[in-house]
Amino acid sequence: MTERVREILGWYRSENPGVLTNLARMLNHGRLGGTGRMVILPVDQGWEHGPARSFGPNDAGYDPHYHFKIAIEAGLNAYAAPLGFLEAGAADFAGDVPLILKANNHDSLADEKDSWQALTASVKDALRLGCVGVGMTIYPGSALRKQMYEEVRAYAEEAKANGLAVVIWSYPRGTSLSKEGETAIDVAGYAAQIACQLGATIVKVKLPTAHIEQDAARKVYEKEKIVIGTLADRVKHVTQCAFAGKRVVIFSGGAKNDNDAAVFDECKAIRDGGGFGSIIGRNTFQRKRNEALKFLDEILKIYGK
Amino acid sequence: MTERVREILGWYRSENPGVLTNLARMLNHGRLGGTGRMVILPVDQGWEHGPARSFGPNDAGYDPHYHFKIAIEAGLNAYAAPLGFLEAGAADFAGDVPLILKANNHDSLADEKDSWQALTASVKDALRLGCVGVGMTIYPGSALRKQMYEEVRAYAEEAKANGLAVVIWSYPRGTSLSKEGETAIDVAGYAAQIACQLGATIVKVKLPTAHIEQDAARKVYEKEKIVIGTLADRVKHVTQCAFAGKRVVIFSGGAKNDNDAAVFDECKAIRDGGGFGSIIGRNTFQRKRNEALKFLDEILKIYGK
Amino acid sequence: MTERVREILGWYRSENPGVLTNLARMLNHGRLGGTGRMVILPVDQGWEHGPARSFGPNDAGYDPHYHFKIAIEAGLNAYAAPLGFLEAGAADFAGDVPLILKANNHDSLADEKDSWQALTASVKDALRLGCVGVGMTIYPGSALRKQMYEEVRAYAEEAKANGLAVVIWSYPRGTSLSKEGETAIDVAGYAAQIACQLGATIVKVKLPTAHIEQDAARKVYEKEKIVIGTLADRVKHVTQCAFAGKRVVIFSGGAKNDNDAAVFDECKAIRDGGGFGSIIGRNTFQRKRNEALKFLDEILKIYGK
Amino acid sequence: MTERVREILGWYRSENPGVLTNLARMLNHGRLGGTGRMVILPVDQGWEHGPARSFGPNDAGYDPHYHFKIAIEAGLNAYAAPLGFLEAGAADFAGDVPLILKANNHDSLADEKDSWQALTASVKDALRLGCVGVGMTIYPGSALRKQMYEEVRAYAEEAKANGLAVVIWSYPRGTSLSKEGETAIDVAGYAAQIACQLGATIVKVKLPTAHIEQDAARKVYEKEKIVIGTLADRVKHVTQCAFAGKRVVIFSGGAKNDNDAAVFDECKAIRDGGGFGSIIGRNTFQRKRNEALKFLDEILKIYGK
Amino acid sequence: MTERVREILGWYRSENPGVLTNLARMLNHGRLGGTGRMVILPVDQGWEHGPARSFGPNDAGYDPHYHFKIAIEAGLNAYAAPLGFLEAGAADFAGDVPLILKANNHDSLADEKDSWQALTASVKDALRLGCVGVGMTIYPGSALRKQMYEEVRAYAEEAKANGLAVVIWSYPRGTSLSKEGETAIDVAGYAAQIACQLGATIVKVKLPTAHIEQDAARKVYEKEKIVIGTLADRVKHVTQCAFAGKRVVIFSGGAKNDNDAAVFDECKAIRDGGGFGSIIGRNTFQRKRNEALKFLDEILKIYGK
Repeated sequence: MTERVREILGWYRSENPGVLTNLARMLNHGRLGGTGRMVILPVDQGWEHGPARSFGPNDAGYDPHYHFKIAIEAGLNAYAAPLGFLEAGAADFAGDVPLILKANNHDSLADEKDSWQALTASVKDALRLGCVGVGMTIYPGSALRKQMYEEVRAYAEEAKANGLAVVIWSYPRGTSLSKEGETAIDVAGYAAQIACQLGATIVKVKLPTAHIEQDAARKVYEKEKIVIGTLADRVKHVTQCAFAGKRVVIFSGGAKNDNDAAVFDECKAIRDGGGFGSIIGRNTFQRKRNEALKFLDEILKIYGK
Repeated sequence: MTERVREILGWYRSENPGVLTNLARMLNHGRLGGTGRMVILPVDQGWEHGPARSFGPNDAGYDPHYHFKIAIEAGLNAYAAPLGFLEAGAADFAGDVPLILKANNHDSLADEKDSWQALTASVKDALRLGCVGVGMTIYPGSALRKQMYEEVRAYAEEAKANGLAVVIWSYPRGTSLSKEGETAIDVAGYAAQIACQLGATIVKVKLPTAHIEQDAARKVYEKEKIVIGTLADRVKHVTQCAFAGKRVVIFSGGAKNDNDAAVFDECKAIRDGGGFGSIIGRNTFQRKRNEALKFLDEILKIYGK
Repeated sequence: MTERVREILGWYRSENPGVLTNLARMLNHGRLGGTGRMVILPVDQGWEHGPARSFGPNDAGYDPHYHFKIAIEAGLNAYAAPLGFLEAGAADFAGDVPLILKANNHDSLADEKDSWQALTASVKDALRLGCVGVGMTIYPGSALRKQMYEEVRAYAEEAKANGLAVVIWSYPRGTSLSKEGETAIDVAGYAAQIACQLGATIVKVKLPTAHIEQDAARKVYEKEKIVIGTLADRVKHVTQCAFAGKRVVIFSGGAKNDNDAAVFDECKAIRDGGGFGSIIGRNTFQRKRNEALKFLDEILKIYGK
Repeated sequence: MTERVREILGWYRSENPGVLTNLARMLNHGRLGGTGRMVILPVDQGWEHGPARSFGPNDAGYDPHYHFKIAIEAGLNAYAAPLGFLEAGAADFAGDVPLILKANNHDSLADEKDSWQALTASVKDALRLGCVGVGMTIYPGSALRKQMYEEVRAYAEEAKANGLAVVIWSYPRGTSLSKEGETAIDVAGYAAQIACQLGATIVKVKLPTAHIEQDAARKVYEKEKIVIGTLADRVKHVTQCAFAGKRVVIFSGGAKNDNDAAVFDECKAIRDGGGFGSIIGRNTFQRKRNEALKFLDEILKIYGK
Repeated sequence: MTERVREILGWYRSENPGVLTNLARMLNHGRLGGTGRMVILPVDQGWEHGPARSFGPNDAGYDPHYHFKIAIEAGLNAYAAPLGFLEAGAADFAGDVPLILKANNHDSLADEKDSWQALTASVKDALRLGCVGVGMTIYPGSALRKQMYEEVRAYAEEAKANGLAVVIWSYPRGTSLSKEGETAIDVAGYAAQIACQLGATIVKVKLPTAHIEQDAARKVYEKEKIVIGTLADRVKHVTQCAFAGKRVVIFSGGAKNDNDAAVFDECKAIRDGGGFGSIIGRNTFQRKRNEALKFLDEILKIYGK
């Protein structure tokens, strides 16, 4: 156990030893084990965007085993997916990589400005599948967020009582937010804060832009001269919004980016801004296997420094 | 146990001894212990207004431990915050200050005239975190208040059956009220009454203005010559609306006020009007630590007289 | 919060903040607050031995309020009693002294070599009465101990999940033990160990004699030259048996002793041996009020040094 | 509300207002209303001893309505009976007399030294029948008392949470006690203590003799010179054993006594000893109606003085 | 994941992925990680034999942290202990070593030929403490074994449904067996079989002698010329009795043996006979720390070959 991992666990003293153990399992696994940094592979896009949109670009990805193998071979900290994907490989790869059960999901079969997530797996499922944690999405800004907060809260309480870590995907979205506002720096910080206040062990947000969405916030950013010029500055700010860096915050890469250098620069910014790592789905599984491994290798090198 | 605290507990004879004990714990803690007055530090603004608007002015406040320490060092009666903020320090500061779990919350990511609050923590959470009570917000005047009253009532029933005190933040808001009406004297008194009728142990309202919002009420205020000229008069009236002063009513200070003297005058008015104290968030944590402690020291001196 | 109390709480990191808070409440209350020492008043003898045997010597003790007052006036850390006794005063003295609900009990209306304890109060009772913890008796050595261990375990799990401290009275008794063996040093250490292994927050045992009951143990005591010559030596050994002193162990005084000096010497031995304090029932309530207060004052002085 | 009733209710401050209300209903009903004294008619003998043994001497007693009418016409404080007897009249006499549902029962179809009681009605039954309380029997001294204490405790918790008063019939009995010991003064006091510790609102015991059953107790009675010479002395002592008189203790008359004067003398002794009244079954319903009413009139006069 | 571990997991295909994951965690942890061999540190002797007999020879062992540290520093596969011992360190050493909650226990305070084990921790406890499995003892041969089998089975069912591995300590004992018979080869094989049939993930038995206890068995051993001459032969036979080696069987070392060479020879025999490893308590913690680490180092070398 490195000093850094011990320090991180020290921020979660109100949690039971089970939650601490499962958080440690993620922090200690893979090539980044012990560094306090994490790279997680999430594959819930089959549900969220549909299989062809997700796996068409690299049809090996239709096979659930493919993703387990990538996460294992690349030496990632954890692999996150919905019930079916985990059931399709959890026995085959038992013990090979920490698993996170993505426990709520949403499809894109309808055009809903104000979105929701359906509970699609139980805490008991996570236990029987050997997971280290559960993952839940909330949409701060959605007109339906009251229900989401309440469902996630109840689920998180049960998960933590059973020793599981809770990862909250906090993705601002909804009628009240502009498209640009979904990744605005003020909104991203707000989303991180809400996830932490709901009791998340790990928070996942999108990389923020320098846009400021809310007028009331803009005044403060300007008056207090909050530094948000570079991506690293913004990562630093979002991390600060997550309990002054005392909660593990990781950043998602978003859609497939053909410009690898840009993704690597993002990872460097996350690292330099004090973020804890990345959760990289489409940029991983929408490339061919060897490219994906090479791509992840580069990212792990960035974080491992 | 002072006579005054004994007298206050005497107003709550229908409550079980657990509720009385936890109310006594707050009344007996800190520098105002035994006086029957209370100053509580609430820090739910990270959720309610967003982290940058809340903690940007004094960025030490992003750290959950900071607020525990302020409440402890200043000698306040209690510290109130949402689940995440309490989880981030409840083990580290166990036994140092009475804790109130702010159990419902709302964000400002959408512009909703008629607002709601989501249940973001359970009674069991309050017990496992060692809290003396739970805090809930209602919005009298909101078109959604039926649901809020019903949720708060059910939660309060469970909390009190488990010996926890129930603090209700009663903040009039919604389509039917003018902006000015939210702090109108008639509305403030009404809000205090509703919180008491819902079974609150402690009621928190905003300081009222001399404005009268409702015509039906204005007739009575005028006919009965209800005295509302000074702030102390209005505090007295709101306290009267809270069961003739037989429920503990505290007043919130609202936004950061750079004019300290004005805040101190408000506290004097609360004291002179027979209010039980203040709940001071932004005016505390939006100043630098030393200034905040000095500021609170002044307020405690006012109430301690 | 003193360094010593902080150190003690540090031994219980697997417990939730509620348990830590309630343990802190006891350690911080009364004249010994902050020293890490405790003196607790237990009054369950009305049930265990009958009212006349218990309260006949000082008939003020028939009145439940009497014991609350003694515990408060003497400045003890906590008062422990069965449901009825607590119900008879918990509202009247709410907040004045930490309460422990003695949740199982046994009467002496039958002559049973292998004894049991009936569950006579619920965890919910402890919460509604505002208690900081629950107390349970086990009889290691009784032929019925399997059932007792199981009942106490389940009850303790529920109590701790709700933030309550668990105090286990571990009193060896039963067919297999000689009368002398009930307080033998090997048996006393064993009894302390079992209570700790059951998850007790605080352990209460009787002061041990230098007698060794079990042949298998005697060999070890002799071979390893375990020092048990003085009472302080034996207290030190029993405390060691309670997880190397990392669980709070307190000692019961037993029957009324007319020789006060002997009791004070016992307390000095507990203090010098590293015990955490005393639980003194009959020696308190079987004397007249003033004598009892004077007697407790002397004991608190011993522990306060 | 008389001062005396107010004083009695003041002993039960930990109870909820429902329990207080139902206790007040009994204390304020009938000819003794307001005096703090109670006479209750119990008719559970049809179950306990069989119908012919119970109602043969006055066959009007086979009819459930008969007992309601007696209790009402005589102006008693309450009427207690098992489920069937109450169901047979609760609607017909709704509001006429406070009802106590005798919720556990035992028949005499087998000769069992160590006896038990079966739960024969629910708390819900008591509520739907409009009862003010529930009655439960325990047999201190029975080898089965652990189970009885636990059943009664759980039932009492539920009843009190629903606002019902709990009356415990505490009748020592079992292998370990001699026949004479069942009414021995030490055992009677012990039985009263146990019922109070179990949380009883009202305790019912048998009138004690001057016999002392337990050696350990005898030493104390002799040493402390506890006065038990007259029946009034013994009533006074038993009342003292019931929390120094801070619980309502009533005494049962036992089998039909043809010597009315003896019964009246007993009532005078109860009154003079500070007992709260009588519960008189067989001496009421085993006489003809007019005699019974005359007999009760005499008793009420005794208590009314 | 090594081929060998993959092969072992392949024997448990009916188990859910959680059980497989936790079995893999043990098989992959520590210096023997990946070899398919295990050395586990069990410390339940404080409860089973008493603290002085257990920890007197090396008093560092009274401290619960000591054993965590030994298991971690030596690089063992897992550490097994009762509730209290795990609670005393599970948060401090979260993630450092796989934990097994010894969920039933027995003390030696009474001389019982036919012994039992009390359930002293719940499956929920194992989850909140972050354990990989639970451990249970059965006593095949005890007159009470029906109850034990049934308790263990029900507990194992719940544990496995929650993804926990189940370790069964199968220790023949009871009226029907001679002292020599407790470790007889036929009885040892029988004990292994029963544990497997109960659904154990890992079976722990004592090293068997060449003695044959049961006449009916002896006939077969002789007729079929079952080879039991050397210890390795007998280990091979017991392993065969555990589903032809398709369940992980480990062997306990028993009492402290001053002849290290003898213990090492036993480990070699276990290894050569196809056993999966050792569970070594007293031989570890009854020596000084450095000696213990050196001793374990030797054993790990034996198994690592």
